Amino acid sequence: MNDNAYGREIPVAAFATVPGNSALTLIRCSGKGSLEFAASVFSTPQKLLQAGGNTVVHGWIVGVGSGKKIDEVLISVFRGPKSYTGEDGLDISCHGGTTAGKAVLQTLIAAGFKDALPGEFTFRAFMNGKLDLTRCESVMELVSAKTDRSRSHAVNRLSGVLAKEIDDIKKTLVSVLSGAELFLDYSEDEISIDPDEAAGKLPGRETITETIARLKKLVDSWQTERIYQEGVFTVIAGRPNAGKSSLFNLLLKEERSIVTEIPGTTRDWIEAWISVDGIPLRLADTAGLRESGDYVEKIGVERSRELLEEAELVLYLIDGKEGVTADDMAFIGEFRQRAKGTLLVVWNKADVAGLSKLGNIINISAKTGEGIAELIKTITTAILGKGSAAMPQWGMGNGGQAKATLGTVRQKNLVEAAAAALDEALRLSAADKPLDIIAPLLREAVNSLGEITGEVSTADILEEMFSKFCVGK
Amino acid sequence: MNDNAYGREIPVAAFATVPGNSALTLIRCSGKGSLEFAASVFSTPQKLLQAGGNTVVHGWIVGVGSGKKIDEVLISVFRGPKSYTGEDGLDISCHGGTTAGKAVLQTLIAAGFKDALPGEFTFRAFMNGKLDLTRCESVMELVSAKTDRSRSHAVNRLSGVLAKEIDDIKKTLVSVLSGAELFLDYSEDEISIDPDEAAGKLPGRETITETIARLKKLVDSWQTERIYQEGVFTVIAGRPNAGKSSLFNLLLKEERSIVTEIPGTTRDWIEAWISVDGIPLRLADTAGLRESGDYVEKIGVERSRELLEEAELVLYLIDGKEGVTADDMAFIGEFRQRAKGTLLVVWNKADVAGLSKLGNIINISAKTGEGIAELIKTITTAILGKGSAAMPQWGMGNGGQAKATLGTVRQKNLVEAAAAALDEALRLSAADKPLDIIAPLLREAVNSLGEITGEVSTADILEEMFSKFCVGK
Repeated sequence: MNDNAYGREIPVAAFATVPGNSALTLIRCSGKGSLEFAASVFSTPQKLLQAGGNTVVHGWIVGVGSGKKIDEVLISVFRGPKSYTGEDGLDISCHGGTTAGKAVLQTLIAAGFKDALPGEFTFRAFMNGKLDLTRCESVMELVSAKTDRSRSHAVNRLSGVLAKEIDDIKKTLVSVLSGAELFLDYSEDEISIDPDEAAGKLPGRETITETIARLKKLVDSWQTERIYQEGVFTVIAGRPNAGKSSLFNLLLKEERSIVTEIPGTTRDWIEAWISVDGIPLRLADTAGLRESGDYVEKIGVERSRELLEEAELVLYLIDGKEGVTADDMAFIGEFRQRAKGTLLVVWNKADVAGLSKLGNIINISAKTGEGIAELIKTITTAILGKGSAAMPQWGMGNGGQAKATLGTVRQKNLVEAAAAALDEALRLSAADKPLDIIAPLLREAVNSLGEITGEVSTADILEEMFSKFCVGK
Repeated sequence: MNDNAYGREIPVAAFATVPGNSALTLIRCSGKGSLEFAASVFSTPQKLLQAGGNTVVHGWIVGVGSGKKIDEVLISVFRGPKSYTGEDGLDISCHGGTTAGKAVLQTLIAAGFKDALPGEFTFRAFMNGKLDLTRCESVMELVSAKTDRSRSHAVNRLSGVLAKEIDDIKKTLVSVLSGAELFLDYSEDEISIDPDEAAGKLPGRETITETIARLKKLVDSWQTERIYQEGVFTVIAGRPNAGKSSLFNLLLKEERSIVTEIPGTTRDWIEAWISVDGIPLRLADTAGLRESGDYVEKIGVERSRELLEEAELVLYLIDGKEGVTADDMAFIGEFRQRAKGTLLVVWNKADVAGLSKLGNIINISAKTGEGIAELIKTITTAILGKGSAAMPQWGMGNGGQAKATLGTVRQKNLVEAAAAALDEALRLSAADKPLDIIAPLLREAVNSLGEITGEVSTADILEEMFSKFCVGK
């Protein structure tokens, strides 16, 4: 990453909140000379220039040169390295609405600030050693968390739980590695006392086996984390009049629905995000897709098919009053053959039709709400697997330590790479290969772990990572 | 306003920014015991409790009782009376997104804060003498300002320009009034030296005449202010193919368009807000309303008619290539008869059809942009009146004083009431009515002015006023 892309010395400014129908708008500034630039458009410049770190100054932002009042503001002053970015910086709290914040930001730009790039504040925090990469990533995870559970997992990573686990594993490996390298350097002088090492064998093999287990546990955690972060695309299907919309509306009402916009697309089916036991479910109702007219019907059927193939989970409703029809059997058969998602068959209208005589089927009434709690439990188990009921909340309750979990694909790939290198090292060692071809594999594992926290990093990885952030972060 | 509605002692909390896709979310807290409540859910409570006013404390919001980390925050601490509300208070800067801020606010509520009512922070600021009512109102004007010009006018009121003018006028009147009341009290003792007073006449009549002029100038300012605040509903009309959509798109592109949502309605015509010389124009394009199908045509014509009757300004396009047709004449005739808005007739396609031979018509080409500057000038004059070109910017430039202008209907009604009372006082004085029936009119005028700044206020007026604010303000 070059200095033009994220020019570290230059003072930058950006909205940290979205200007809109709110009381306040927050603008963030950071970089060398931030205070001087801001003072040049502040009603009492000396007060700002002399303000200590972590203090709040009240005054007016005024036009460059003109001195014309732009907005009345509160400025929080930060003096590096005691700041989010590690640099001198300011948080400017302006009035809300669509114009006040914009006018202030324009004035700051006119005073010399540059527009901050996406993720630039967090990038600077990383470059200045304020946050390791797992914490940087957790900042983005936190901002885009869809449910309270996903927020809570991101918070654990932000508080350093993952960074600590990675550092811990790395230290263990480094000590094994230094043992091996010591042997490589000095074996000819015969200073070795370990009989394994004397035999030219990889030292610390048990530690490596334990380490691999720890890494694989982290990799496993990503399966669940991904679900909490991205959610599960769930489609309600069934024959006309099976009660799809009733179930859709009931779930929306009973489970907390999440305000998460799905940007930029218009759809001819209805969908919404709901939180099922903390899992974000993108729930789609295929009702209405084939309700009127031949042409619409045709499109509707095609769309339904696409949705079903895309779905990770399908709730297939049987109309209890009609019983299982040939259509139902055909659908279930075809779905199992063509689609990859999980199918849950649900017997609806149990309040009037009675319970299904089939085993392994969930009886509900979308009308009375009967059986919905059971359905929710089945959905959760289907998504998270059998052990889900006993799954820890990953909190800090009972004085226990929060569990380390991975938060991004990047982290997962690197942990997998480290585990693979260690696996290979053990395999070569078992095959009695010499230590000088095994030791580099250990170093590779250590480097992969270093990349996770950012101790080892390359410009393009950083650029790729931070460009996904929103501006102002 | 009773203490239940806006319970002044109770610590309240609310979002001051909209939680969404942004880096940060700001939560505002105010009231007696705010610091103690916040400390009970803060990672380092002592640090917060001991923090001085106008300082920033870094730490974590943690769960009530559990101590579980909720979010990493920066808290700006304010100690009353040095705060927005005049009370002890906090601004809590949480992470952005839809979950972090919510979790923090829930924690604060669990810790004892109550949800703030709309406008409660500003109301408390008023009750604690931090802001007079004109400044309170300007806060809302500022947040809902649609263009930079409207923002700038609200800022002048926020900085106290209007409050100062009202106070000034009131002081003048009070001195006249005390002269009159002195006379009423002492006339029998014959201490009066003024020949007018000796004759039982109203003293300071010239001052009152000047005061009425000042008040009327303020009332006049509201005409313009209302336009800057609410905007002007402008409809582009004309026969099919006259170039309505081209003009619509051109104006959207050339004049800065404003992001102002028009909530809650779906429309079958296109509209957008643009800023014409700082005036917000809600611009509607009636093209498309009658484009296809008989039924749609019928609805389209009806809607067009409704829009035109509602419009404050209509830009009627003549297709220059066709010239003025019978349809055009019929429209113009009917409009002048039925509608109340201003009609501007515009000759389009001047680039290929040449200029119109009619006088008093604006020649443009929506295709080339020719004549658009002239059209804009004509629109501005039509809205603001002839003197608009010379209209001051109401800035603070050249060391001059910003002009006092009214910002709300409430203010306008009170200024009018004051002026009317003074008019009546002069009329009665001219009719040689005794001073004891004239003096109460002067007192009435003084009271009306006191109501504007809030010196004189009643609970229901306050409740009505602040309930219009957004939460967090």
